[in-house]
Amino acid sequence: MSNLKAVAEHSKVSIATVSRVINNDPKVSKDTMLKVQASIAALEYKPNRVAQRLRSTSKKTKLLGLVIPDIQNPFFVDVVRGVEDYAYQNNFAVMIGNFGQDEKKEKLYLDILQSENIDGLIVAPIHGKDKGIENLVKKNIPVVCIDRGLTDIDVDVVKVDNEQGAFNAIDHLLSIGHKKIAFISGNFRIPTYIERLAGYKRALSEYGVPFDENLIFARDTDYKSGFEIANKILELKERPTSIFSGNNLLTLGALEAIHAKGIKIPEEISIIGFDDMPWSISLNPPLSAVRQPGFDMGRKAAEMLYERILNPGSKKEKVILKTELMLRKSTARLE
Amino acid sequence: MSNLKAVAEHSKVSIATVSRVINNDPKVSKDTMLKVQASIAALEYKPNRVAQRLRSTSKKTKLLGLVIPDIQNPFFVDVVRGVEDYAYQNNFAVMIGNFGQDEKKEKLYLDILQSENIDGLIVAPIHGKDKGIENLVKKNIPVVCIDRGLTDIDVDVVKVDNEQGAFNAIDHLLSIGHKKIAFISGNFRIPTYIERLAGYKRALSEYGVPFDENLIFARDTDYKSGFEIANKILELKERPTSIFSGNNLLTLGALEAIHAKGIKIPEEISIIGFDDMPWSISLNPPLSAVRQPGFDMGRKAAEMLYERILNPGSKKEKVILKTELMLRKSTARLE
Repeated sequence: MSNLKAVAEHSKVSIATVSRVINNDPKVSKDTMLKVQASIAALEYKPNRVAQRLRSTSKKTKLLGLVIPDIQNPFFVDVVRGVEDYAYQNNFAVMIGNFGQDEKKEKLYLDILQSENIDGLIVAPIHGKDKGIENLVKKNIPVVCIDRGLTDIDVDVVKVDNEQGAFNAIDHLLSIGHKKIAFISGNFRIPTYIERLAGYKRALSEYGVPFDENLIFARDTDYKSGFEIANKILELKERPTSIFSGNNLLTLGALEAIHAKGIKIPEEISIIGFDDMPWSISLNPPLSAVRQPGFDMGRKAAEMLYERILNPGSKKEKVILKTELMLRKSTARLE
Repeated sequence: MSNLKAVAEHSKVSIATVSRVINNDPKVSKDTMLKVQASIAALEYKPNRVAQRLRSTSKKTKLLGLVIPDIQNPFFVDVVRGVEDYAYQNNFAVMIGNFGQDEKKEKLYLDILQSENIDGLIVAPIHGKDKGIENLVKKNIPVVCIDRGLTDIDVDVVKVDNEQGAFNAIDHLLSIGHKKIAFISGNFRIPTYIERLAGYKRALSEYGVPFDENLIFARDTDYKSGFEIANKILELKERPTSIFSGNNLLTLGALEAIHAKGIKIPEEISIIGFDDMPWSISLNPPLSAVRQPGFDMGRKAAEMLYERILNPGSKKEKVILKTELMLRKSTARLE
């Protein structure tokens, strides 16, 4: 590939001038600009983005990093779409790293993106205490946390009111007579699940139903866990009359387990999922769910990141969006 | 952030030695290695990946680019998982760019990934003639195409037999008495849809059923298109008795349209989707579908890319995997 020097020789200007053209320096004359651009095109010279950004003060070339826990979860796909929507409108590209709820992979992506000199990062931290992300914030790299905040450092965050979202789901089940409500949760290292459990407990307490820890099943947040835990629940001697599942993948796994056993929803068991899916109406039966505005969350995070890049010193923001309980056909009154 | 020089001073060695340690040069003694690594840790020095790769001949730091057309489509999520599975086992990280079936965005990601000096690229080309990808192949950048090949250049490809997959679906519908089979397709600029249409036509021809172009509906490959086209189909005077939908998102959109109108599947209309989904059994009714091995395709593509990086001059490979027709409950014999 050609280099700066070759472009300079071809267009008969200095290397410094080529560099100025690449960085859109307004001091370069129109004629020189055109001449150098023609040489760049003729030689197929592709400025190294990183080198270019280091030379440039105006940061013309813009790249956001987006590090998400699980690309299989349709909720995070919605978040990606929201981030991309805002980013493209504002001339950013988005590179995605998927860490699959794996701490080592999360660290790997933070390292890679940082050394590629991204302009800013949107990340869903694996823990409330995440040293890797804390370090980025301390180094004044623009960071916005999504879905999950950090406990030990002040950082921009967009999330939903998980406690209230879970409360609404459990409140609904209690209001139609359910008392034995199993909770298929993700790992309680993940902040969102701690908050969802708090909402579960508050609803029980408002109805005077004692909390039974044997109904709480916390493991991974994937399809397989949902399937296996639901199988376990369905085989319990005193089977719960309803299930609250903690995310989309757990819900889909649980539905498969229930369907495979030929158990009827909602006649024999009720289920509400946290997270809605675009195709909930096409599920058997149409699923009742706590809807998170994933697209809006992604868009808001990108907007906040943009503000953070422009105003590195401004006050950090916490945005907490509301969930919505979508009642369809997967819950029934307990006779 | 610290630089090479600071690390050299701290560990009392030359800058060249620090560079050798970073690049795992076996000529560096164990003692020096440990001393420099300790300084790197103490100073929190983070070698710039790009600079490091330029300095290194052994390419210790490995990064794959993965450019996909639509992150919303569960098929491509399976592909991503397969690529990541192989990549991590072989010490590569994967950065994902999602171009949302948009030609300009595809070009943007190819440019970004190329100038970030990735070790190799897996991409699903938007067209059979894709100049951007052709140029990468010509520059000997390791590239594997997935899901879709290129017509004008020899390149490594992993795809499925789309023609036979579509044939099997239509053959099944014809065998149970359907003659009016609507095809909700993606845009015919995308090679996979040309191949699926060919399979559709071949099956009709084997049954002596004339091809009716009014039953072919090709537009975008998203949920909204599936929903809108299905609505159009359901309002036709002579309504087709069955639908073949070209990808997951089109299928989910079509299902929503059918459910929203209260039309019964399969009693009033049959439907088969191209692409299976992990939750097909939980759909109403369980969906019959042409299963593509997305995970295996991703894994195979990553493996081929690895081979291509190691052996740049070896013969290009075409791998064509088989689809499988999964018959569930969404099709019925026409009385």
